[in-house]
Order: sequence, then C-alpha cells, then structure tokens
Amino acid sequence: MKRVGILTSGGDCQGLNAAIRGVAKALYNHYKKNEIKIFGIIDGYRGLIYGEYKEMQESDFSGILTQGGTILGTSRQPFKLMRVIDDENSIDKVKAMKEHYQEMKLDCLVVLGGNGTQKTANLLSQEGLNVVSLPKTIDNDLWGTDVTFGFQSAVDIATNVIDCIHTTATSHGRVFIIECMGHKAGWLTLYAGIAGGADVILIPEIPYDINTVIKTIKNRTKKGKNFSILAVAEGAISKEHAALSKKEKKAAIAEMAYPSVSYKIAHEIEEATGQETRVTVPGHFQRGGSPCPYDRTLSTRLGTAAAKLIIEGNYGNMVAVRGEDIIPVPLSEIAGKLKVVPVDSPVVRSARELGICMGD
Amino acid sequence: MKRVGILTSGGDCQGLNAAIRGVAKALYNHYKKNEIKIFGIIDGYRGLIYGEYKEMQESDFSGILTQGGTILGTSRQPFKLMRVIDDENSIDKVKAMKEHYQEMKLDCLVVLGGNGTQKTANLLSQEGLNVVSLPKTIDNDLWGTDVTFGFQSAVDIATNVIDCIHTTATSHGRVFIIECMGHKAGWLTLYAGIAGGADVILIPEIPYDINTVIKTIKNRTKKGKNFSILAVAEGAISKEHAALSKKEKKAAIAEMAYPSVSYKIAHEIEEATGQETRVTVPGHFQRGGSPCPYDRTLSTRLGTAAAKLIIEGNYGNMVAVRGEDIIPVPLSEIAGKLKVVPVDSPVVRSARELGICMGD
Amino acid sequence: MKRVGILTSGGDCQGLNAAIRGVAKALYNHYKKNEIKIFGIIDGYRGLIYGEYKEMQESDFSGILTQGGTILGTSRQPFKLMRVIDDENSIDKVKAMKEHYQEMKLDCLVVLGGNGTQKTANLLSQEGLNVVSLPKTIDNDLWGTDVTFGFQSAVDIATNVIDCIHTTATSHGRVFIIECMGHKAGWLTLYAGIAGGADVILIPEIPYDINTVIKTIKNRTKKGKNFSILAVAEGAISKEHAALSKKEKKAAIAEMAYPSVSYKIAHEIEEATGQETRVTVPGHFQRGGSPCPYDRTLSTRLGTAAAKLIIEGNYGNMVAVRGEDIIPVPLSEIAGKLKVVPVDSPVVRSARELGICMGD
Amino acid sequence: MKRVGILTSGGDCQGLNAAIRGVAKALYNHYKKNEIKIFGIIDGYRGLIYGEYKEMQESDFSGILTQGGTILGTSRQPFKLMRVIDDENSIDKVKAMKEHYQEMKLDCLVVLGGNGTQKTANLLSQEGLNVVSLPKTIDNDLWGTDVTFGFQSAVDIATNVIDCIHTTATSHGRVFIIECMGHKAGWLTLYAGIAGGADVILIPEIPYDINTVIKTIKNRTKKGKNFSILAVAEGAISKEHAALSKKEKKAAIAEMAYPSVSYKIAHEIEEATGQETRVTVPGHFQRGGSPCPYDRTLSTRLGTAAAKLIIEGNYGNMVAVRGEDIIPVPLSEIAGKLKVVPVDSPVVRSARELGICMGD
Repeated sequence: MKRVGILTSGGDCQGLNAAIRGVAKALYNHYKKNEIKIFGIIDGYRGLIYGEYKEMQESDFSGILTQGGTILGTSRQPFKLMRVIDDENSIDKVKAMKEHYQEMKLDCLVVLGGNGTQKTANLLSQEGLNVVSLPKTIDNDLWGTDVTFGFQSAVDIATNVIDCIHTTATSHGRVFIIECMGHKAGWLTLYAGIAGGADVILIPEIPYDINTVIKTIKNRTKKGKNFSILAVAEGAISKEHAALSKKEKKAAIAEMAYPSVSYKIAHEIEEATGQETRVTVPGHFQRGGSPCPYDRTLSTRLGTAAAKLIIEGNYGNMVAVRGEDIIPVPLSEIAGKLKVVPVDSPVVRSARELGICMGD
Repeated sequence: MKRVGILTSGGDCQGLNAAIRGVAKALYNHYKKNEIKIFGIIDGYRGLIYGEYKEMQESDFSGILTQGGTILGTSRQPFKLMRVIDDENSIDKVKAMKEHYQEMKLDCLVVLGGNGTQKTANLLSQEGLNVVSLPKTIDNDLWGTDVTFGFQSAVDIATNVIDCIHTTATSHGRVFIIECMGHKAGWLTLYAGIAGGADVILIPEIPYDINTVIKTIKNRTKKGKNFSILAVAEGAISKEHAALSKKEKKAAIAEMAYPSVSYKIAHEIEEATGQETRVTVPGHFQRGGSPCPYDRTLSTRLGTAAAKLIIEGNYGNMVAVRGEDIIPVPLSEIAGKLKVVPVDSPVVRSARELGICMGD
Repeated sequence: MKRVGILTSGGDCQGLNAAIRGVAKALYNHYKKNEIKIFGIIDGYRGLIYGEYKEMQESDFSGILTQGGTILGTSRQPFKLMRVIDDENSIDKVKAMKEHYQEMKLDCLVVLGGNGTQKTANLLSQEGLNVVSLPKTIDNDLWGTDVTFGFQSAVDIATNVIDCIHTTATSHGRVFIIECMGHKAGWLTLYAGIAGGADVILIPEIPYDINTVIKTIKNRTKKGKNFSILAVAEGAISKEHAALSKKEKKAAIAEMAYPSVSYKIAHEIEEATGQETRVTVPGHFQRGGSPCPYDRTLSTRLGTAAAKLIIEGNYGNMVAVRGEDIIPVPLSEIAGKLKVVPVDSPVVRSARELGICMGD
Repeated sequence: MKRVGILTSGGDCQGLNAAIRGVAKALYNHYKKNEIKIFGIIDGYRGLIYGEYKEMQESDFSGILTQGGTILGTSRQPFKLMRVIDDENSIDKVKAMKEHYQEMKLDCLVVLGGNGTQKTANLLSQEGLNVVSLPKTIDNDLWGTDVTFGFQSAVDIATNVIDCIHTTATSHGRVFIIECMGHKAGWLTLYAGIAGGADVILIPEIPYDINTVIKTIKNRTKKGKNFSILAVAEGAISKEHAALSKKEKKAAIAEMAYPSVSYKIAHEIEEATGQETRVTVPGHFQRGGSPCPYDRTLSTRLGTAAAKLIIEGNYGNMVAVRGEDIIPVPLSEIAGKLKVVPVDSPVVRSARELGICMGD
C-alpha cells in the first residue's frame, strides 16, 4: 500500500492539472485498487501546515488534462517564513507539516511548484519526509531542468498579445511596449519577443541603455518603419540601476514615479522621439487558461516520471527534463538556485544576429 | 469611369481590411478594368487634409481579408478641431480636404470609422462631397446600425482574457477585475462579461453602488465560492460620481489616485472583504489581430453594400445592419448620436435573470 | 414548487451546456431553494423513453459555460420512429415518455435540439406535456429564429480550417475543397466560405454547374492565381442531380463512386484543368469544443428566456431570436419546417457582388 | 559580395517563412547593403531545374514571420527522379540545376525541406554546389536533429481536433478515431495523442493487434466510460500486415476496401463492440496556418544559424537542434536516414505508464 499526498504551491500556471493527472493515472495504473491512496492537500503548503486535505478518488483526476489552474488550489507560502512561528496560531510550521504528513500516514509527498516551492520541498526532505517534486513555472527559471511546464503556454499567450498589438502599432505608426512577466529571468520575454517579431527585447539579465533603445527606434523611422515593438520583462533594469548598490536599488524602486519600468521607458522614448508610445500589460492573463499541447505532454511526462520514482521509493528528487529524457535531480542540488538567461546563450545570439536590439 | 477614395479613421480595429477589400473587390467585379480607379488616402482624414494618397492596384486588396489593422494607416483627427485652423501650417482643414478630393477628381469618398469619423463624414457630405461610410468600432456604439464590425472580435479577445483569468482566480481564491475598453458604452464589457461567466458586470450606463458589489462578493464567499470575476468597463462610474455636475466629475477624475476605476474598485473590495483583489487591463490587445469570422463576413457585407451605393450614385449614407439586411442610413441622421446600452435591454435583463450583479 | 426536466437531443454542438446552465441558473435565481427541482434526462429522448434520469444539484450547472458537448448526453431518436413500437422492448415510446414525465411529476420539459428534436417536442406538446424548447444546431436551419446556437462556433472552426488550407493551396498552387457540414442547408458553408475568402461556394440551395466552377478556376489561373479554394456543403448538388426525380436521386447517390460530392467535384476539376485538387473534410470537428463567445452569450440568453417562460407557465413554445429580442414561438408553427438559404438572400447577393462563384 | 539562393521543397508546413526570414534578416544584418544579394528560387527544385527565380528585396522578407506556407512556392520533386532525364524537355535535371546555380553566380544555395529534400541537397553538395539546409517537416522524422520546425504547429492543430472531438465522443458515447499525418513516423500522432488525452495511440513503429485495441475499449466500457478516443497515424499497421513481405504489403494496401487504415479499424471495432465508431481525418489542415510561437522561434534560430554558416563559408551541412544549441551536421551523415519513434523511447514509456494502449 502506498499513501501519497499531492500539493501545488506558488503562483498557478498552465499544466498543473495535467501533471497531477499524470502522477495519479500512472499510480492507479501501476497499483491494484486497494494498494494506492492519494490525498489532495488544499492550497499548497498552507493545507499541509493547517491540516486541510482530502482523500481523492480516481475519478477526480479524469477530464482535467486540458484545464488551467489547479484542482487542489494553491497559495504563496514564502520560504523565508517557513521557519518563523505563526504567532496568531502559535504554530511551528515545519513541525505542523511533519505532523500532518504523519497523520495521513504518507509514504511520500508530491510537490508541484517553482523556486520557492522547491526550497521548502528540500527543507522537508532534509527534515526526513519523502518528497518528489515537479518543476512548475511560467518563468522557466528552475535550475537543473531544460524547461519547466507552464513556460510554453505563457509564451504562446504573450506572443498572441504581441501579434495583436502589432497590427495596431503598424496602423497607427506607434511605439508599443508589451510588458511580460519575469522579475529576475527573461526567458518568457525573450522567447515571446522573438516569436512575436519584436524589434527590441529587454530582459533583467542584460541591463539596458535607454539611448541604445532610442537609437534603434530612430533608425527604424529613418528606414521608413514608423512603428516599433518592444518586449520588456517586468524586471528589466537600466544600466544606471544595475550599477546601484542593493540599498540604492530598493530606494530607486520605491521612488519610481511609474507603475512599472515599461511606463518609464515609454516616457523616455516619447520624450526623445516625439513618437506616441503605449504600454500593454497582459499580467495574470499569461498564467491562465488551458495548457498548450507542448505543456500537456511535458506535464504528463513529468507526472509519470514522478510516479515512477514513488513506485521505486526514490525520494528527495525533482523530476527534470534533460534532452529527450526525464531524470531525477536531487532537491539539495537545485534548491535556491535560479536559472537566468545566459548573456551569451544561443537564443540571445540568434536574436542579435537577426538584428534585434537587446538594449545594450 | 468612377474614381473612389478610401480612408480609415480613428482607432484601428479588426475588420478594417476586410471591409476595404469588400468595397474594392465589389467595384472591380462590377466595372471594367479602365472604368474604376481607387485611391488610398493615408492615415485617415490627415491624408485628405495634407494630400497624402496613392493610387491603388487590384492586387493591393488581395490577401488582406484576415489581416488586422488597416493597410491605409489611420489617425485620430478630432471632429471638434476640424473647423479649427492648423496654425502651424495655416491650413483650413475642411477647405484642404475638399481641394484634395477635387485634385483626385473623386466621384466619391469612402470613410470607415466610429463616432467621430461619422461626424466628419457628415460634415464633408454637407460641404458637398459624395460620401459613403461604414460603421467601424469595437465599442458597438454607433447609432443606426444593429452592430458594428470590430465589436465581436473584441468580445472574443476580452472573453478569452476572462477565461484565462478564471483559472487563476479559482486556484488562488482571489477576486479578479478585468477592465474592458469602453468609455461611454458598455457593450463590449456586457457581452464579454456574460460570455466569460463574470459574477459582476459594471458598465457606464448603470452607475454602480460599491456596497452592492461587495455584498455580491461576500454572498459568494458564504456559498463557498472563494473567488469572483468582475468585468468592468473603463468608463464605469459609481452612483456618487454620476450624481456630480460635469465640472465636479472632471475634477474628481483629475484627482483620482488610481490609474483607472478598476484599481479604485479593487482597493474598495480588498478593504471591505479582506480578499486579495487583482486587476488585469488587456488594453489595446482588444482591438488588434485577425478579425473573427463573424466580423469578416460582416465587414465584407458592409463593403459590398457600400460599393453598391457607389455604383448607384447613392451618397450621403452610412451602410448599416438592420436585421438580415444591410441598408443605407443618412449620415445626417446618425452623426453625433451615441448608441449606449439601454438599461432595460434584453441582454441586461438576461444578465440579471442569470443572477449577475449589474452593480445597482 | 416547480419540477423541471431537461434533455438535449440530436447531434451535439457547442453551446448546449451554456444553454442548460442559462435555464438552470435563472431558475435557481428566481425560486427559493426548496421551490425548484431540476431533473437531468440522460441521452435525449432515449432517457425519457427508458426512464433514465437523475435529480440535479445547483453545483452540477457550475463551470460548464465554456464546455463543449452536453453534460446530459445525447442521442439521435428519429422523429419518424417515435410512433413506431420498439419491438424488442415492446415499448410504446410516446406513452413511455408521458409516463416518465409523470413519474418525475414534472411541471415542464425543456428540450434542446434541432429540427427532428423540435418535431418530437411539438408531438409531446400536442400530447399534453408542458414543453419549452431551445434552437440548437450548427446548421442554422431552424424555422422561426434568426439564428441557432452552435452555428457561429461551427463557422469559426470551418473558417479556421479554410485559413490553414489557404496557405498550403497558395504554396503548392493547388485547388482545395473544404467540405463543410450541411446536408440540406448551406448556411455554414456560405458564412465560412465568405469568412475564409473562398473563391467558389457550393450550397444545396443553389445547384451547381460543374462547367461554371471549372471556368472560374481557369479564369483565376489566367489572372495569375494558380490556386483556388472551394467551400462545398456536404449536401451540394449538381444541376443534373437537381433535375432528377426523388427516386432517381436516391439511386444516383447509392451509385456514386466517391466518398462524398467533394471528391466527385475534385475529380472533375482535375480532369478539366489538370490542376492538382485536394479535399479536406473536417467532419465532426466542426461541432465540438468550447462554444465561441457569440454562442455563449446567445445560449445564455436563450436559456434565461426559456426559464422565464417556465416561471410564467407559458408552454408549447420554442424560444427564438428575433432582432435584438428573444421571443416565444409556438412549436406548432415551426415544427417540421426547414429554413434554408434563400437564393436571393442579402448574404448570397453580397457573395456574388464580391465575385465569388456560387456555382450557377 | 555574397550571392545566395533560397528554395523551399516538398510539402509545405508552418515556419517556412519564419525560417526564410531568419536567414535573410541575419544576412542583411551582417553584410553591407551592396555586399549581399538573395535570389528566391520558385517552387522548390523545379525552379532550379527550369530556371525560375527572382532577385529578392529586403522588404520581401518583412512581415512574413507569422505567415503559413512559403512565399517562394514549393513542389514535390522526388529524389529518385532527379537522375532521370525529363524526356519531354530533354533535360538532365542535375546538370540544369548546376547551370542555373552558375547563371545566378551563387556562392551558396539554402534549401528548406524534409527527407527527400535533404537527399537532393546532399546530391547537389556532392556535385560541388555549396549547400546549407534546414530541417522542415511536420513529421519530425529527420535524422540528426532533436526536432524539426512545423512539427509542434501540427501537434497543436491535431490536438485541437482531438479536443473538439472529445466533447462529441463524450456526449454521444461513441468511439472516435482521429487520423493524424505520418506514413512512416508516429511522432505527430504520439504527441498529439498524449496531449489530447487519447485512450489508444497507434503508430507505424508499433504494429497493433486489433484485439488489444478492442479489449481496451471494452475495459473502458466496463469501467463506465462509454466513449474512447483513438489517435491513429495514417501509416499505422497491424501485426499481420507487418509480418508480410514487401510485395505482399503492396498488394494488401492495393486491395484494401477502406479509404485508409482508420476506417478499417473503425469497422473492426464496431463489429466487435457494437459501439458507434467514427473517423475524422484533418488531413492538410495539419500543415497549414500560422506557425505556433515554438516553431517561430525555432525557425528563426535555425535561419540565423544557417546564415552564420554562409557567412563563415561552412557548406555541406544541415543546421540541427542539439539540446540548447543549433549545430551544423554534414548532409552526407543525415541524407536518406529516417528518424522514427524508438519503440522504447521515454515518451512511449510515459504513455504506457499512464495507461494508454499503444496497440501491442
């Protein structure tokens, strides 16, 4: 008999349900009916902390492959607060999680999430729980895996937005900035920018010089192209900002007179070029809706790979994409590491060769 | 020999190229090759004022049915400035438009646009030019026609955004506001709201009481539904605001501490319910990209109907949808009139019967 | 206390669940909790005949707005067999339906379906049952309503197929036939054909002359357009075929050496022009998947209108679209009548004006 | 000065224009204006054989990123006929291609295509022409590259078809077969099948036993699931067929009483289970329309990588995806080799672990 708990944690994204289904279906397929019991833990680690969970039925996992969001609910439980006592309820969170794990008599806890989630997964693993995790995030910034699920679906949506904006930009002769999600990693902006035919792509990894951006736009105008498209990550930073100390950065952000960096850039472009410049922020739209086929297959594969580790009793790992294969990677190796876009990565080089301005 | 000028004016939207193609193809189909000449006027009325236009070829109208935007370019030329002299260039705009019309030796000017555009079209008609116009706007707020092209495409996009946000709202137990375009008319918000399964729909025509909105959200929570979706028009107004004088309204808007009404509402909901409340503003995304099949057929039909009026020499009209038919409606009858959502329209009643909160 | 039964009958289409939800939500919204009971009858009239039904809960109608298909299941129960005894089970179907209606103590039966379904609905109404029906079909061929739900969603899909085929046709210089659903009515083919930019549209209402079709393709080649797109209804017929007696027609169809009329036309075009000609049959794909926003709003409105008739006790009607309104139309007036495309309808005229070959 | 010829050959697919644009933009970006000249060769190798080509302008490559098909046209020129004299025109094809290459004074020929195309590219390379090729095919069956462009777009379309069919299958309690493209390789069927939630996936690489398929469907019925979805490659073969000699196979196919293998399987299922079984064949729909964002980025990257080889004068290679990188692979190494799905590949294993019947 295997008793397995599943939770999804952090910002939701496309493919969570597909992955949950992958884990569950593979387990139900392997074990006899009375040999496997799956518990759904509600709203991520919060459910594990406060003991909210329910026993699932096989039918709960049917028909969810194409559904966005997560049938288990999710919440953000910052890693840095995991060791902090919840005063209001006088709860030691780590202890509470271990207790509920034992209350359910789990053989294993399956965790789907991004960077913060993996850190807590590693913590629980070090605390002696059997953990298997899956790499989920539209940011694609998880260490140890070629790609995360949710990423391609978000790229599809952001690209669709750029496509639509393109026709308006052309018709009106405007500059348009599409602000994509991504505070620290520019994967989403980079891929959507190339796929959407952006003229300028600004990502956190490559601090931008506003003069370079302006020059690019002016050059386009000279060539008779009276519109320009900028794909800008919400975490894009200028070279001046990048040169600041951590403290100065915080102050600069706090004092910024714009809702986000894109509005600042838009203002600077308008000032310098006189060209009408607009900003569109698709926001949470990027993480919702049905997963794209790429993510459905990826999530399913990661799900069955996680199930295999459970069957083998091989714990303490995140399942990760490595070329054609899905392999286990120790949580201790990946927790706390961010995978950002290498400044000289093949994709960035391709963008430059194409003539896209990367801001530097 | 017929000589026809075409221009697209105001904010771009889906279906402009399909409509242009409809006019052109029907003319080329009717006349012998050397009997018809079509001029494309660049960037709307601006091109007519400043004499920017080009002779088009039949092939220019091929392959554009599915393209967003307008191959002719567009610009906003406020009606209220049409009689105002352009000091910088010492240009009497109306006089200049008439001169360029004569320079091209036009038999007729075809104008595609929304409310402002129709007003200027009427002005030019009164000034003696032969004008045929087509009803274009995602706002669906043109008087005299059942529907405008661009509207359904915008509804499709806004609904898609609501669909995607829905999964995030459910997974996180959040309140989400999707702000749809529409300063004075709520058609887009109303239709996208119903199609997207919104729980609350706020449109400019029905001033809202924030307490009613909050009560609706609280009632949902009581019923175990820990998320809510609000479709809010960018022109939605509170009952307090509606009661103000025109002057006071202006001052109130100028003083508003939020980027838009949705952020104000979000703040009030969070304060009153303690529930995390987020805003998504798809913005210009709503007016771009390929027209939906509904708009392609509609635009094509309006285009061929306009061509028919040209062939017949029946000028001074906007082509309008009336039931199954496309009919000519005198510009003088529709110019300057806004078609807003009747408070007791069948669609609003249906929304109420369904249990949707309309804010009042 | 109202007791309401709901069934969906005939081929499934987009918007069924949205309509069911509309009926149910409006009823739950109007009545107190213990004043309304809704029964779901399984697999259409079959469930009513054989007594398969279940009491529904309010939550059953939640989250189904965007789902394709029908949560109640459906089946084809030909009208002409309704009066025929089911020998195997010795069941008088009409009697059985009345008995199960009484067994459930229904105040009213809500029926969603197309032409056949409406005929049986009328029969049951004449037999004394309280019936309210909704117009469902991708064929748009129901008498008494401007439009049916499912139609626009099918147009969207068929247009998408034509769009995709277009690029292949252009790249290869081929003739392509896209065969759309529609045995007797050409609405779907006509609207998808115009929206997809078809060069030839063949519908059952306008028998085609293959020579006219071939001439059109040859003319395009002469003009340098080495590809052509034909949208052909599965029920398209040649002039020769149209001239046959009913008996001869049946024989002709039975003897036809091709899977469908499109393959016959493709063969004739290839023979006459030497141009590679291919056929694509999207088939059931056209009736599946999530309803488009247009259909969601339409289905919802029809649903709430049906609920209103139930609340008022106004039975024996189909809810129908008439301009901006939804009105009740007596079942006796519409049952058995087919709404085909008028040969001189505004849309057909527009297609002709555009230069589209209608085959005649 | 570099003089570059480009051609696209074989069945068209999504991403061809994006790749062409990638090559061209990177070349224009690298060279001064008068240092680079690009020739577009019309309709694939046919244009090179018969001397149909045109000098391209930079603007020809603008705005084509999102367009399906190929702006250069394409045709199928079987490799096995390349050495055969075209009697009608007394043309030695290979000689003619070399002559036109010299006539254009090319430094290099860029070839985009699938397996047959790569074989001819290798032939021309061995004949002394400078060749760079790109891997294009929805079949994903090219040796030497992790993936080809066009594949993911086709998966997206096929999955969408399965999604839509799903709702009909469920509502009617039917068995549905979706026949995907792929004569020799099952990649498309396998990935679309998993992404679409198919219950059975039949690919050419794994000959199927019809009894296994039937048993799977019956088991589902027993579990209360009255519908089943089969994703079947057009080249799927039964175990009996696989055991035949090459000659016997040919005869068997010639004698088959069904339009394709899917209809045969449908018939056998209906016979054995009594369940209504339908077939949908999306056909050419799968290779048309706008490339998905994944393919746009991939095509662009392959395009810029090809441009880099041209700049370096590194000829005789196909650009190929290898992990994160794009690398050159000698044409001699990959020509004539087919990459089929390994029977024990990680994706097949995942499908089996999930409980999907692979037919064996």
